[in-house]
Amino acid sequence: MSELKLPARSEDFSEWYNQLVLRAELADYAPVRGCMIVRPYGWALWENIQQALDRRFKATGHQNVAFPLLIPRSFIDKEKHHVEGFSPELAVVTIGGGEELAEPLVIRPTSETIIGHMWSKWIQSYRDLPVLMNQWNSVVRWELRTRLFLRTLEFYWQEGHTAHATREEAEAETRQMLDIYTDFAVNDAAIPVIPGKKSDSEKFAGADTTFSLEAMMGDCKALQFCTSHFLGQNFSKAFEVRYLDKEGQLQHCWTTSWGLSTRVIGAIIMVHGDDQGLVLPPKLAPYQAVIVPIFKTDEEKTIVFETARKLKADLVKANIRVTLDEREGSSPGWKFNDWEMRGVPVRVELGPKDVAKQSAVLARRDRPGKEGKISASLADLPATIERLLVEIQQSLHHKALAFREANTRDPKDYAEFKAAVETGFAFSFWCGRAKCEEQIKEETKATMRCIPLDQPGGEGRCICCGQPAKEKAIFGRAY
Amino acid sequence: MSELKLPARSEDFSEWYNQLVLRAELADYAPVRGCMIVRPYGWALWENIQQALDRRFKATGHQNVAFPLLIPRSFIDKEKHHVEGFSPELAVVTIGGGEELAEPLVIRPTSETIIGHMWSKWIQSYRDLPVLMNQWNSVVRWELRTRLFLRTLEFYWQEGHTAHATREEAEAETRQMLDIYTDFAVNDAAIPVIPGKKSDSEKFAGADTTFSLEAMMGDCKALQFCTSHFLGQNFSKAFEVRYLDKEGQLQHCWTTSWGLSTRVIGAIIMVHGDDQGLVLPPKLAPYQAVIVPIFKTDEEKTIVFETARKLKADLVKANIRVTLDEREGSSPGWKFNDWEMRGVPVRVELGPKDVAKQSAVLARRDRPGKEGKISASLADLPATIERLLVEIQQSLHHKALAFREANTRDPKDYAEFKAAVETGFAFSFWCGRAKCEEQIKEETKATMRCIPLDQPGGEGRCICCGQPAKEKAIFGRAY
Repeated sequence: MSELKLPARSEDFSEWYNQLVLRAELADYAPVRGCMIVRPYGWALWENIQQALDRRFKATGHQNVAFPLLIPRSFIDKEKHHVEGFSPELAVVTIGGGEELAEPLVIRPTSETIIGHMWSKWIQSYRDLPVLMNQWNSVVRWELRTRLFLRTLEFYWQEGHTAHATREEAEAETRQMLDIYTDFAVNDAAIPVIPGKKSDSEKFAGADTTFSLEAMMGDCKALQFCTSHFLGQNFSKAFEVRYLDKEGQLQHCWTTSWGLSTRVIGAIIMVHGDDQGLVLPPKLAPYQAVIVPIFKTDEEKTIVFETARKLKADLVKANIRVTLDEREGSSPGWKFNDWEMRGVPVRVELGPKDVAKQSAVLARRDRPGKEGKISASLADLPATIERLLVEIQQSLHHKALAFREANTRDPKDYAEFKAAVETGFAFSFWCGRAKCEEQIKEETKATMRCIPLDQPGGEGRCICCGQPAKEKAIFGRAY
Repeated sequence: MSELKLPARSEDFSEWYNQLVLRAELADYAPVRGCMIVRPYGWALWENIQQALDRRFKATGHQNVAFPLLIPRSFIDKEKHHVEGFSPELAVVTIGGGEELAEPLVIRPTSETIIGHMWSKWIQSYRDLPVLMNQWNSVVRWELRTRLFLRTLEFYWQEGHTAHATREEAEAETRQMLDIYTDFAVNDAAIPVIPGKKSDSEKFAGADTTFSLEAMMGDCKALQFCTSHFLGQNFSKAFEVRYLDKEGQLQHCWTTSWGLSTRVIGAIIMVHGDDQGLVLPPKLAPYQAVIVPIFKTDEEKTIVFETARKLKADLVKANIRVTLDEREGSSPGWKFNDWEMRGVPVRVELGPKDVAKQSAVLARRDRPGKEGKISASLADLPATIERLLVEIQQSLHHKALAFREANTRDPKDYAEFKAAVETGFAFSFWCGRAKCEEQIKEETKATMRCIPLDQPGGEGRCICCGQPAKEKAIFGRAY
């Protein structure tokens, strides 16, 4: 709770982000390079994200499981693209119980391999399919350049894994999960996202097709929000995951995997935050409202606290996540700033005059200054705050969507394209060739984020080589 | 879902346990020696345990956090007893990103050290105290003899960690958490437990005092249900966790830690299970009720399924966790056995005659055969099942308590003591000396489980050496 001012978001976005994560006590640097500690406020946010997703996963028939964090090194080698992608990033356990291990173990970078191994034992017949699993855990990837939430050696996520009898079912699952993530992003995180397909160079190591959601951050850079992979029969062939079909024939399963990580917390910070700090979407905010008592004398304090505690109880009863700031030794003004920095959607200011009038002043976090302040009667407070939370939730999404649209261009030529990706997204025809993708990356630092599922139709010419192109793609610089 | 019969619990308790864990699909062996995979049914049970505890932790002001799984090897060395206890059990990462690490990292066996390190940065003043944290995670201890749920290399648990300004507060926290665990054990897991203090030889490596809950399993052996440690200033001195008190003096904090693991699933299996398989306490059972439809003709099937689905919806509305067994190709009798083996508290049998009478047959899992069957009208079914669940929950606890009492003896002399610990617990005066504790262990294989907090009072003579003794202790062979 340092008194130092945050760097201005508009002036130094990167430093604003780094300091805000620490100052809001979302996370801290661990003693091991590249690892993070998620502090109570950050973890409460993650728990709300987990619940919002877990509910959706279970409603669509997925069951949670727990596979071990240690995987035999040899498992990684069984799928040829997987080993290429993950070998350089492995953390390897070579000593256990004081002795050198006969076979080194890796800490899971993801669990397709060990799950494939177990499925080969569990899955026998078409009656055992589909298998719909998910797990909430952490994984380790030895990244060199790390940043809290955005890229850490160890990160928290969920990894869903499913096995199906047919290609069609597995493809439908891949798309269903992308839809579920989209619903969560838009309605809970208030982040507009672009669902689309990744290029071959950016797809998951071992996937046939990778889909992702791409979002625009407050500095106009892209962030991959989550991914959903159609794995074809790549892993089922590597691990012999087979089933007897209704005709008694042995078939390989079709599998998928999909994941969303604590990276999303980084996205929430960067999409909604402002110079004052975090702006949290009401559906995910650890506290949706904070009551700040205002008083000078002991007598005033008694009166204000009595009302504030009753108010808190009323709000809890209405299922609003609320806290009452009873900290001693800090002024109301300091508390206002502190909770603004922490992004609480609604602040309730309550002083002796308010108590006398049986009203309170409500301040919306998303509208700074007087514009966001209203007076509300105490009797109606739960209903008023509920309404405000809905409004704020929608307003955050609208604002983020307008921002993305204002910063997405449809450049006429490569020169315009280069300018566009300097300051935002370009939505351009692309011939689909890796050569153009690479050239663009080299010359502009922008990558092909995705080929959006939602296409305008028609044909055009590749923004890079001018050859005929059937699909438009989103290009941008990315986290 | 093999058709093989379980070994009889009374004949081969150990093999009954091992096979039941696999057959009920609670867990399976992982490809890495000593690791386990918790399958959906086992994980759903664990999620219910987590929720039951997490609610209690949060109600008493604890906040969840996430510390990294990798800890610098040197941290373990900083507390002298801690390093002695945990060094032999460490899994060590020596390679990261393809390169040998300058300092090896260990996978956390528990997190006191890294938390102490961070607290030394976060805690400055008495205003920052108490710090009340908890995390749900997995830890790795390189055990040589492992068994699913009871002792595995990696296991799932929660570890609570708190820091306080005074010894008294920290001691009160240690005891509060023991009370919370007791409440959970008795009221949710239906397992009677003995809260008590561990001896110096059995306490946590680095603790001043370790408290535990001890429970008697179905084979009369003891299982340590969970622990709560008063750590004194051992870790705060090792990691320089200090605060400025109100007088401006720098003081070391007083800390605690407390944990409960997936071992508890082993306890639930071994306390309540019978020859038919699991018997799950209703408050924690993944499914509290299962509806098994009975039919011969297609016409009957249509009628029965229609009613069964409506019934399921009614039960869901009443917040009863219910499943409808729609599996094709299995007889009702096979399904009865299967769900009995999985320990579902109430089975609802529904056939065409039942539908005609608008009733169903309910079978209680805890009372085998006709004795546990009642007929209930469909209209009242949610209320009837709710009542049954309460009765079953209480009945399981009563039965387990009566069993423990019947198998706990107060031996008159050492000869009787030896016989007592062959078949159960002995509750005997103990002089408190490690020498007697060791002699008993050597001669009887029984260990001092705990000195119960609830003492009869008075004085006696040590059951081993005959010297004066002030406290009685529980002795038994243990898992």
